[in-house]
Amino acid sequence: MNSKEIKIDQIAQAIARVKTIAICGHVMPDGDSLGSELALGIALRKMGKEVLLFSPDPVPEAYTFLPMASEVKHQLEDNNQKFDMFISVDCSVPDRLGDFIKLIQLSEQVVIIDHHAGSTVFGDLYLNDPEAAAAGEIIYDILKVLPVNIDSDIAQCLYVAIVTDTGSFRYDNTGPETHLRVAELLRVGIPAARINKQLYEEKPLVGLKILKEALDTLTLSGCGRIAWMCVKREVLQKLGAHDEHVDGIINYPRMIKGVELALFYREMGQDRFKISFRSKYNLDVNKLAALFGGGGHSRAAGCIIEGDFESIQKKILEAALQVLEDAER
Amino acid sequence: MNSKEIKIDQIAQAIARVKTIAICGHVMPDGDSLGSELALGIALRKMGKEVLLFSPDPVPEAYTFLPMASEVKHQLEDNNQKFDMFISVDCSVPDRLGDFIKLIQLSEQVVIIDHHAGSTVFGDLYLNDPEAAAAGEIIYDILKVLPVNIDSDIAQCLYVAIVTDTGSFRYDNTGPETHLRVAELLRVGIPAARINKQLYEEKPLVGLKILKEALDTLTLSGCGRIAWMCVKREVLQKLGAHDEHVDGIINYPRMIKGVELALFYREMGQDRFKISFRSKYNLDVNKLAALFGGGGHSRAAGCIIEGDFESIQKKILEAALQVLEDAER
Repeated sequence: MNSKEIKIDQIAQAIARVKTIAICGHVMPDGDSLGSELALGIALRKMGKEVLLFSPDPVPEAYTFLPMASEVKHQLEDNNQKFDMFISVDCSVPDRLGDFIKLIQLSEQVVIIDHHAGSTVFGDLYLNDPEAAAAGEIIYDILKVLPVNIDSDIAQCLYVAIVTDTGSFRYDNTGPETHLRVAELLRVGIPAARINKQLYEEKPLVGLKILKEALDTLTLSGCGRIAWMCVKREVLQKLGAHDEHVDGIINYPRMIKGVELALFYREMGQDRFKISFRSKYNLDVNKLAALFGGGGHSRAAGCIIEGDFESIQKKILEAALQVLEDAER
Repeated sequence: MNSKEIKIDQIAQAIARVKTIAICGHVMPDGDSLGSELALGIALRKMGKEVLLFSPDPVPEAYTFLPMASEVKHQLEDNNQKFDMFISVDCSVPDRLGDFIKLIQLSEQVVIIDHHAGSTVFGDLYLNDPEAAAAGEIIYDILKVLPVNIDSDIAQCLYVAIVTDTGSFRYDNTGPETHLRVAELLRVGIPAARINKQLYEEKPLVGLKILKEALDTLTLSGCGRIAWMCVKREVLQKLGAHDEHVDGIINYPRMIKGVELALFYREMGQDRFKISFRSKYNLDVNKLAALFGGGGHSRAAGCIIEGDFESIQKKILEAALQVLEDAER
């Protein structure tokens, strides 16, 4: 057994010994965080455990169709409630548990299951595998060791975890093992096509309206390597839209032929802008964001800048052209 | 062995015996048609066969990155050229071979490899498996039987065939076997994430401009179950766009929450409209298209109508509401 398999075995054995278990994912939960938490919760209940599911933020509407999603709680019934075990899924930064950071103190044993690189080591059993495409992949491996059958409900949750965190198997975190696990999940007999429709074809109308407004602002640099769009507050207000409706719009400038760097300006308030950076193949946008006090990953980063919009755009474009030139030299 | 395995074996044996082979896919080639043709061509050349690759229409720019794509020919060098074998891939309707229908006469043996339901049985060896998600899946199975190693070039072509025909594994043609085959293709070591970027993130700028114009026309029925958009000729002319740039835009009205039926009106000429119909979960749009002399599949169909745009829209909407009401009763 390799060290990951040993850790999976240890976690499975520890789980088998306890009775009351709290599970929580990270703030602003995504498909992997929720899918992993629900899959684990359903499986442990099937094993006779007393399981409570928590999330610091509400379940986004897109994921409310998941089995047992309605049982996810946003506060403890009792602030002194004790648990034999707390399992943090898809989260190894205590602050990202929001209020549920207190579960660490309230539980006899703390287990961390995550796949994000560069996180904090905490808890009694810590398994963070950045090679895993999704926390859902690790949960799958743990459930394979536990005396529980992966039924359709569990398989649906794990499928959502994996499909969302791999961008429908398009991202470079997707390996042969990902497809092998998903083949097994489909064998259980889940309605995968319907799940994909629920995930990707039930978007609020206002999202398309914002997309239209954002496309109205689409601009390319002279070299065609940089493209950007912006959304002002007044547009969001006019459409009755929230910040969440803007998510994903930055993918549009990036999908243009020849574009390596996409920028998205979101007005946060008077003279205050959040700028998102995305690169396609090679550019390290983390470096670019860092020039303006921001950060992130090499392909996705962001920063917040205050000032006049015109001069912010000028500054960002100059820096972006420079970083691009340095990278392609 | 089941009947499909027997057929695969027969085809593999027949291929092993011949020397000169012509391969052709269908008109307006897509990722499956081209990926399957190229994968087979590369493999057969590795086996020492003399292979010529044909396509009735040019290779779309999105697929020019595929290995050996530049070797696909659009006409015969010599109208009397003879082949030991002609293999029609992803096509079992002779007319969809365009001019290359003549390969049927020019070849001693004709092999059909397809997965489209309801096609014409022709040729000496006919394998049409509507259970296959892509022709690429059948080619994969044939290559597994032939004495040839699936190398990175072949694996890339097969990956593109499968990923495009399954909508990135979202459509209901995607089964466990699809993911198992793809796991094997990834094991060969192909740059899958980069391929996905080349397929889905290198779109012509004009496509986003048309999307913006189309979103400007987005309208929903009072019940919120039907959404439609249109693109007029003058818009295409203004943007210097071609019909191919409009492809896929109908996905946008369908992805709205609550919408079951999406319509897209494309002006073909003076008082002449092509109408595309797409349904999300249950509605049979083939029936709807048939009311106007069109046809297609249950989730995707189309028709062409002549007349004044206002009255066409009125007629279509009335019929659509009726079909929807009948279906949901």
